[in-house]
Amino acid sequence: MNGAVLYGPRDIRFVERQDPTIVESTDAIIRTSAVCVCGSDLWPYRGVDPITRPTPMGHEYCGIVEEVGSDVRIVKPGQFVVGSFFASDNTCPICRAGYQSRCVNAEPIGALGAQAPFLRVPHADGTLVATPDIPPDDLIPSLLAASDVLGTGWFAADAAAAGPGKTVVIVGDGAVGLLGVLSAKQMGAERIVAMSRHEERQRLAREFGATDIVTERGDEGVARIKDMTDGLGAHSVVEAVGTQESMLQAIRSTRPGGHVGFVGVTHGVALPGLELFYAEVHLLGGPAPVRRYLPELIDLIWNRTIDPGKVFDQTLPLEQVAEGYRAMDERRAIKTLLVPA
Amino acid sequence: MNGAVLYGPRDIRFVERQDPTIVESTDAIIRTSAVCVCGSDLWPYRGVDPITRPTPMGHEYCGIVEEVGSDVRIVKPGQFVVGSFFASDNTCPICRAGYQSRCVNAEPIGALGAQAPFLRVPHADGTLVATPDIPPDDLIPSLLAASDVLGTGWFAADAAAAGPGKTVVIVGDGAVGLLGVLSAKQMGAERIVAMSRHEERQRLAREFGATDIVTERGDEGVARIKDMTDGLGAHSVVEAVGTQESMLQAIRSTRPGGHVGFVGVTHGVALPGLELFYAEVHLLGGPAPVRRYLPELIDLIWNRTIDPGKVFDQTLPLEQVAEGYRAMDERRAIKTLLVPA
Repeated sequence: MNGAVLYGPRDIRFVERQDPTIVESTDAIIRTSAVCVCGSDLWPYRGVDPITRPTPMGHEYCGIVEEVGSDVRIVKPGQFVVGSFFASDNTCPICRAGYQSRCVNAEPIGALGAQAPFLRVPHADGTLVATPDIPPDDLIPSLLAASDVLGTGWFAADAAAAGPGKTVVIVGDGAVGLLGVLSAKQMGAERIVAMSRHEERQRLAREFGATDIVTERGDEGVARIKDMTDGLGAHSVVEAVGTQESMLQAIRSTRPGGHVGFVGVTHGVALPGLELFYAEVHLLGGPAPVRRYLPELIDLIWNRTIDPGKVFDQTLPLEQVAEGYRAMDERRAIKTLLVPA
Repeated sequence: MNGAVLYGPRDIRFVERQDPTIVESTDAIIRTSAVCVCGSDLWPYRGVDPITRPTPMGHEYCGIVEEVGSDVRIVKPGQFVVGSFFASDNTCPICRAGYQSRCVNAEPIGALGAQAPFLRVPHADGTLVATPDIPPDDLIPSLLAASDVLGTGWFAADAAAAGPGKTVVIVGDGAVGLLGVLSAKQMGAERIVAMSRHEERQRLAREFGATDIVTERGDEGVARIKDMTDGLGAHSVVEAVGTQESMLQAIRSTRPGGHVGFVGVTHGVALPGLELFYAEVHLLGGPAPVRRYLPELIDLIWNRTIDPGKVFDQTLPLEQVAEGYRAMDERRAIKTLLVPA
């Protein structure tokens, strides 16, 4: 098969890779129906996370089970499945507590390269969730979104304790931030403030449930949020960027006793201890335990309650993966869906 | 009156200060029955937090109400009261959410100097909680402890989500850490690990409910905790020191999805973002909202369910305050109670 391989900064190629096969008896092989490019893929693409050798890319996926190992009991060939970007056994104490992305046997799907027509998924029974039936084509973008970008936005809103009566601020207008808006809306938040200066993203944020748009950033952004909340700050803030500025903006926008959910993969961040001490906010973040939420998210998508697939504003054949990365790198696309041939 | 005033590093004097008077109509004046020296007082005492002029010291207190301002409705002269180290109105949205130490009208008692026979307490109705009656002398140390050191240990254990079935680790064997042990025990924790290499403090930790003592620190301490928890880390970790080493030790001792409650006033701490991201722990800390817990704590003390006053292993007349600071600085005393003449 051919798949996406990163050779160096901004050098991604659609090249021959070995077909995946069952390695462990708990593996499944799936034929991907759709895959996509993640904001976090841009870190190595831009050379910020250096790579030392050609690296298969991609960790968001959904598709049809082709084959399962001899110890797979729940997942069946022919099922349509969605999985998290971390494979997890879903039985260890960390999984049972709902933190499957940190499963004691976790394996990052990114290391296996999901931007390809076939993918080996470890711990298939613990990782994959089947849809009620083979989905109609128009649901596939939303189901794909559940694999990471929706699951991550959902976790962020959950970690930020979004809920009825709450003012929720979303820092970051990438796909995760936008789906953080959708998640906060689903969780019943009263007021949802999207911080964005891009008209197209503002529009989608409003469509997903944002009640307010703030275009200011940094200290000015914080001041605007304080103005909107009687000087107190928001109850809940989602951080979906990962820089020092965005983390501090998120913390400073939160009222004492409030919650920050941070899901932007942090780069060059050092949180000043004394500021964190006096901020007195709940802080929780990290790689989203998407598996915890998948059954509920699939249900909401299947019932057409939510349409997270709208974040995909570019669809390309997988072989044009390089253009997909370029478009996201240049912020011409919010998120690019890739369709294997 | 005479009170404790810090003139410079390790130069604390018992000197003439102006008697406090009602300034705002919501103030009360109390005659202190007992005050004490806090671990956090040692930062300026040691010159780590520099002072620029002679500074009245102390923020932990209990005593008899002498006089109240014209707008004080609840607190009455003659009552025995305990208050938090932050005055709070207890009516603003932040107070109502339970974060009174960050009240929009908060005033630090430390700025008023509680190590004195009389103290002005702002926002008396929001800050002070009366005991059911004038307490017997033997309850006074425990009631004094509720003002900060117990309330802080309690908040730390609460922020760390201590509870039934949980393994709770306490980093720091000062008075706050020891009362973190007591608090975790009251909250029903299954296993309580005190990290201490001081025999006297280990003894008190065991008395307060510690099931295990770990003497290792830093990475070795983390490795011991991992060994004791099937490699997972503790569910709940209380951080009661405030240094970079202790913060990282606390975070690294916590399992993914677990909780860290940090109450050591942080000094020179910068939390590495990427480590915090992959740690995936809940983090909450800051100045304890003692007021939230005071009614419950007073009740537990009044009923003799808990005896937090045991942390006071030195009692001196207030005029010997300098010896109290010296003993704590040199770790000869865990905590020093001071009795006004």
